[in-house]
Amino acid sequence: MTDSIISALQATLPAEQVSVREDVLAAHALDQGPVTDHKMPIAVVWAQSVEDVQSVMKLAHTHSVPVVCRGAGTGVSGGAHATTGCLVLSLERMDRILEIHPEDEIARVEPGVVNADLNTAVAEYGLMYAPDPASYKISTIGGNVATNAGGLRCAKYGVTRESVLALDVVLADGTLIRTGRRSFKGVAGYDLTGLFVGSEGTLGVVVGATVRLRYLPADVQTIAAFFPEVTTAAAGVLAVGKARVQPAIMELLDGNTLVQLDAEQGSDLRQRGGALLLIQTDGFAAETEAKIVRQVLGDLGATVTAEVSEEAVRLVELRRHSRGAEMDDVFRVGEDVAVPRSQLVHYIAELERIAADHEVGLKVVAHAGDGNLHPTFWVTAGETEKIPLLNAALDESIEVGLALGGTITGEHGVGQYKVRWLPLEQREEVLELQRGIKALFDPKGLLNPGKALPERIEA
Amino acid sequence: MTDSIISALQATLPAEQVSVREDVLAAHALDQGPVTDHKMPIAVVWAQSVEDVQSVMKLAHTHSVPVVCRGAGTGVSGGAHATTGCLVLSLERMDRILEIHPEDEIARVEPGVVNADLNTAVAEYGLMYAPDPASYKISTIGGNVATNAGGLRCAKYGVTRESVLALDVVLADGTLIRTGRRSFKGVAGYDLTGLFVGSEGTLGVVVGATVRLRYLPADVQTIAAFFPEVTTAAAGVLAVGKARVQPAIMELLDGNTLVQLDAEQGSDLRQRGGALLLIQTDGFAAETEAKIVRQVLGDLGATVTAEVSEEAVRLVELRRHSRGAEMDDVFRVGEDVAVPRSQLVHYIAELERIAADHEVGLKVVAHAGDGNLHPTFWVTAGETEKIPLLNAALDESIEVGLALGGTITGEHGVGQYKVRWLPLEQREEVLELQRGIKALFDPKGLLNPGKALPERIEA
Ligand SMILES: Cc1cc2nc3c(=O)[nH]c(=O)nc-3n(C[C@H](O)[C@H](O)[C@H](O)COP(=O)(O)OP(=O)(O)OC[C@H]3O[C@@H](n4cnc5c(N)ncnc54)[C@H](O)[C@@H]3O)c2cc1C
Ligand SMILES: Cc1cc2nc3c(=O)[nH]c(=O)nc-3n(C[C@H](O)[C@H](O)[C@H](O)COP(=O)(O)OP(=O)(O)OC[C@H]3O[C@@H](n4cnc5c(N)ncnc54)[C@H](O)[C@@H]3O)c2cc1C
Repeated sequence: MTDSIISALQATLPAEQVSVREDVLAAHALDQGPVTDHKMPIAVVWAQSVEDVQSVMKLAHTHSVPVVCRGAGTGVSGGAHATTGCLVLSLERMDRILEIHPEDEIARVEPGVVNADLNTAVAEYGLMYAPDPASYKISTIGGNVATNAGGLRCAKYGVTRESVLALDVVLADGTLIRTGRRSFKGVAGYDLTGLFVGSEGTLGVVVGATVRLRYLPADVQTIAAFFPEVTTAAAGVLAVGKARVQPAIMELLDGNTLVQLDAEQGSDLRQRGGALLLIQTDGFAAETEAKIVRQVLGDLGATVTAEVSEEAVRLVELRRHSRGAEMDDVFRVGEDVAVPRSQLVHYIAELERIAADHEVGLKVVAHAGDGNLHPTFWVTAGETEKIPLLNAALDESIEVGLALGGTITGEHGVGQYKVRWLPLEQREEVLELQRGIKALFDPKGLLNPGKALPERIEA
Repeated sequence: MTDSIISALQATLPAEQVSVREDVLAAHALDQGPVTDHKMPIAVVWAQSVEDVQSVMKLAHTHSVPVVCRGAGTGVSGGAHATTGCLVLSLERMDRILEIHPEDEIARVEPGVVNADLNTAVAEYGLMYAPDPASYKISTIGGNVATNAGGLRCAKYGVTRESVLALDVVLADGTLIRTGRRSFKGVAGYDLTGLFVGSEGTLGVVVGATVRLRYLPADVQTIAAFFPEVTTAAAGVLAVGKARVQPAIMELLDGNTLVQLDAEQGSDLRQRGGALLLIQTDGFAAETEAKIVRQVLGDLGATVTAEVSEEAVRLVELRRHSRGAEMDDVFRVGEDVAVPRSQLVHYIAELERIAADHEVGLKVVAHAGDGNLHPTFWVTAGETEKIPLLNAALDESIEVGLALGGTITGEHGVGQYKVRWLPLEQREEVLELQRGIKALFDPKGLLNPGKALPERIEA
């Protein structure tokens, strides 16, 4: 069977679009998520057009071969990990911006367009594509759509879902459909667009997206506020909310994150505080809002940067380009819980307790404006006897997050790695409805099997 | 069968929650939409609790009796029209605000809470529930959710979907499920919340909603701009966009709407211009933005109200409280097309041509910020021979709207009245997927049959 689909693919597509080379297979077997189940694909296929995707899906359907879609492979939940006997279908070469319409304030793109490239292209019209995952320089719009990616300025501008107006999708059997519309508003029919957004390649292949653009802000003000400890910084987030100011960006970095940044950058951030809150206000009122923010945070005991702070801007750029900086000498697992805003302070305190209880390292960065935390637990590399402690800490952090009214994943997706936690958050009836939807869209179960949804537990 | 379910309902619920009185049935047979198919329900049932809804749905399921949910009955697409042999399930008595959490910036409500009541309750915390259909003083959150209602300030703050975080839903067989989460962000599982929003009572009964609140703006500035003709006013909308200012409200009223307002209010609006653009900027930059808007519109030839204009505020209130004022001496049909913003000018010109061609009256109001128009075509009451002309004008206006990249319904929903137009917008494959979803959630087809989706055309 493997042989026959590969020859069929080779007969259908030009040679440079199909590869079975070991190194190529290996390079496309994993995304950046934790690996629990390492499999190799049987082939990697690059689509250059919608028709290519349709051909590949028709062949996969005929031969009953699973297909794992892949954008840039920057996902961190194992959503793009290969599964047994699968094809990896890469969309990265479908990277054309098909249309920018400044008056309609929309763009139409192929799925492989990199987020930053779209932003560069629309900036010349005074527009921006708002969702900005920290991976925006490397991740694709197709991947962003499939994960419903969040980012830094989502507290103000909304996540990917809020910027997607219409999708072109190839279904499991190769049928091409179009959902949504070109207008900002519309309620004709069920929200299929919303259903595909965040479905992690399990319901269809996104081959085109029509996205809404927003206005590039007339002004941006950046504030860095150092706090004695991380819980006060988290309280600062609520204080800004109480002043009824909506910053575009509100990122929180705890003490251990500062220590690590210092080690990498030669800076002295940790000396200046036990936690850092990075805030950007934007728009015509950026200055007025920044003034209020400075006042509010100062009153809470923060040391706040001066009016125009190049350092603050540099720190935001630093945060933008990293998932929290990486450390090679440790074994670490990162998380993505989002909690109701009032629980930020409490949850961070709980995370610190959990790390202490299990004797593992902890650092926390957070898109604090919308309560989305990225704690990382770690042990020194090589201390394999401590891995169970790490996993116990992780499990407890998930349970506590859920108990506070949170979710297991704010923006990274369930992928392969978080499937085991989903039943802690969603009841069996709700999972069953989703399995029904999956079966409707993909009756043979070929699209990214084992991802996003846990298997039914047969009685 | 009718008798047996009614006795079962009477045995289950207190007497004041079930009625079969003729006048009560008649009062609950229709919403405010056009009537093509007038049916009477067999009973009206008022739920007081989630358990009541579950009991009713279980009985309906056992007896295979259709159920039409009803909030305030202000819908204008016939979504709440009774169908043959149905129960009307009214949610209006489930009208408690269950929780307001100012730090989490959310509220939990029962479905029968009136939109304005929620807004009044949260205003004391400096918060607002942003989606504000012109019916906000009378329509319910449950109805708003079921129709994905839009409103005046949606261009800036998003439609109902963008403010709904979680839903409690009773399924067709009486099962209670919970979708979504209490945090702002979250991507665990498929977006079932989004699927229920806008599903017009065809997939489940909304019995509770957790909604996101936004900050009440620190300042609001209102501008009334009179233009020589409606097409220049529509061009004004694009000019404001080009200045990269995002007003909260941008409503357009054409000359005939002004004539009608003058007749009702004794004003002289039509003398002052052929069209009126009402704009509100809000937030900390309201004044700065208002200044830019005044400049931009003045440059286009508009007569713009002075800095602080009580008249402008009064005009917005007037617009807020009416669907465009009503006229009793005419027979009229209203529409709800939304087009891409750049097509506003062109579409309005086309509407005027269509009205002239078919010799029917026309007035247009629009939520112009997001390209959502409400044209009304009319003929003098009694001129029944002209009704075919009216329908022809209507059909042509829909076709032209679609040809310009628009949708048949920007916010009012498909309901019963627009079912016939949906196949003009969505291809059969897309309709089939939706029928599949409907069958999955409601295998017996009992929830609001015949609404929102056209029947399959058997070959
Ligand atoms: C340094 C760093 C920072 C990050 N910061 C953020 C952040 O701030 N916010 C955030 O949300 N995420 C963040 N991420 C995670 C990741 O970048 C996002 O999930 C991103 O959306 C993935 O895009 P991708 O193109 O790499 O997709 P991939 O990783 O290739 O795929 C992701 C998922 O989408 C599916 N998929 C991809 N393309 C398609 C398609 N065309 N059709 C159907 N399914 C498809 C895949 O099967 C997989 O399930 C970060 C990752 C890194 C490495
Ligand atoms: C003067 C006026 C102005 C209007 N302005 C606007 C506007 O600006 N924007 C806009 O979007 N609409 C507007 N509308 C239309 C209407 O008010 C909206 O569609 C509103 O959301 C309907 O709410 P309702 O409570 O009246 O629902 P209903 O009319 O009772 O029901 C509407 C639909 O939702 C279903 N439904 C109701 N409650 C539930 C529930 N709990 N669970 C499941 N299904 C349910 C019904 O079956 C029906 O299909 C206007 C109407 C009027 C009369």
